[in-house]
Amino acid sequence: MSGTLYGLGLGPGDPELITLKAHRILQRVTVIAWPAPDTGPSFARSIAAPHLTDGQIEVPIVVPMRTERFPARDVYDKASTEIAAHLDAGRDVAVLCEGDPFFYGSFMYVFERLAADYPTEVVPGVSSMMAAASAAGRPLAARNDVLSVVPGPLCDDELTKRFNAADALAIIKIGRHFKRLRALIAKMNLLPHAVYAERVSLGTERLMPLAEVAEETAPYFSMILIYKGGEDWIQSLPGSKT
Amino acid sequence: MSGTLYGLGLGPGDPELITLKAHRILQRVTVIAWPAPDTGPSFARSIAAPHLTDGQIEVPIVVPMRTERFPARDVYDKASTEIAAHLDAGRDVAVLCEGDPFFYGSFMYVFERLAADYPTEVVPGVSSMMAAASAAGRPLAARNDVLSVVPGPLCDDELTKRFNAADALAIIKIGRHFKRLRALIAKMNLLPHAVYAERVSLGTERLMPLAEVAEETAPYFSMILIYKGGEDWIQSLPGSKT
Ligand SMILES: C[S@@+](CC[C@H](N)C(=O)[O-])C[C@H]1O[C@@H](n2cnc3c(N)ncnc32)[C@H](O)[C@@H]1O
Ligand SMILES: C[S@@+](CC[C@H](N)C(=O)[O-])C[C@H]1O[C@@H](n2cnc3c(N)ncnc32)[C@H](O)[C@@H]1O
Repeated sequence: MSGTLYGLGLGPGDPELITLKAHRILQRVTVIAWPAPDTGPSFARSIAAPHLTDGQIEVPIVVPMRTERFPARDVYDKASTEIAAHLDAGRDVAVLCEGDPFFYGSFMYVFERLAADYPTEVVPGVSSMMAAASAAGRPLAARNDVLSVVPGPLCDDELTKRFNAADALAIIKIGRHFKRLRALIAKMNLLPHAVYAERVSLGTERLMPLAEVAEETAPYFSMILIYKGGEDWIQSLPGSKT
Repeated sequence: MSGTLYGLGLGPGDPELITLKAHRILQRVTVIAWPAPDTGPSFARSIAAPHLTDGQIEVPIVVPMRTERFPARDVYDKASTEIAAHLDAGRDVAVLCEGDPFFYGSFMYVFERLAADYPTEVVPGVSSMMAAASAAGRPLAARNDVLSVVPGPLCDDELTKRFNAADALAIIKIGRHFKRLRALIAKMNLLPHAVYAERVSLGTERLMPLAEVAEETAPYFSMILIYKGGEDWIQSLPGSKT
């Protein structure tokens, strides 16, 4: 009998924001696999770290960050072959996922290679988008609001359309697009409505009006929330000078 | 010293999908408050039930479901006064929330009445939208997809615009709008791309192609996911006759 493949949502970063279910599976599986950039440690593994048990086999999935050619096909091919060997040997494998596995997660690249051949279970997790709204201290969407999630790499034309259409917005993957995104948001007179949320739920969390961010770039784990009509409370966020 | 007000995200329904943090707070607070329709039991309380401890004080927030005049202002005024009295007496109060508190949650009606006056913490939870995608077994959004969350009560014109614009969609609050929504989805040739997800993560979960739902109405705890380009795998969902 083959093992089961789990896509384990671990939440936005605070190890206490993992679910009881993910916690139970994490402690029980023989093998854990986790993505990491080739430039530093694995965020997903760091969320799981306090919950791991001794002697678990680890499969790192090291993804090159230098190139635009993401996803790195070879990396996922090789990792999936390694994971499949464990599953064939009857060992359960949990792939660790920051946030929710199916909300823009890289777990999909393992999933699309293995889910047809092995019993697979996806355990949903708290998404960074939900955690960012909690940290901002305002409902992300309410009543009949339309909420759109928009990836930062999209071009200005696309973004302009989305920004105009939705009542509330989360802009993810902002990283090196930060400067361009902020300029576009300013041009559309949305700057007073925008919250910058970095490393939410971690000790290093930064939450402030986008208008007051001094840097020209943002780290990978950051997003922008746009609350149309939110200009008053956003000005009183802790990061604010007023 | 006044008590702390918690907005506790409890996840989509499976009591094992609550976070370690919500679990810890749930067991520690003196008072729990929970919303319930006047027509039946509280879903939020049922998620928390296995985790409650003896002797906790309970504050039901019973919301009339018959009228369109939601939110019921008087109900939230009265409940907030009752909660404030506990907070003034130094007792911590957890308001139980299905899914995530700030993702279209009714917690906002308590929050807007009390958060300015009492220490308040919102604990994010696994949203039903994430759980529905896990149950459907496909990434809700990936790469540079735009994902929109659209409430079912919106008019057909609004919905048409949203359905056209996004790559992936979650339609929530479908309940008594189900028939109209399905007709609109069919008219836009999106029926083969639509998944119906009812009571996700519960024992009574139903997951199937929207095209195969026989009923003309849907219960409150159901949503529709639209995956553009998903027609092939959607046809092979368990609910399917093929
Ligand atoms: C590939 S997506 C994965 C999202 C993840 N599956 C989730 O549900 O949160 C990565 C993006 O999520 C956002 N993100 C993830 N964790 C974050 C955190 N702790 N704080 C702020 N943004 C975060 C950032 O925008 C980042 O570029
Ligand atoms: C007022 S909104 C609250 C959403 C909640 N805060 C969350 O994060 O999931 C209620 C809507 O969420 C959706 N919903 C909540 N729980 C669900 C479940 N277990 N299965 C399917 N849909 C659900 C339904 O569309 C319902 O009409």
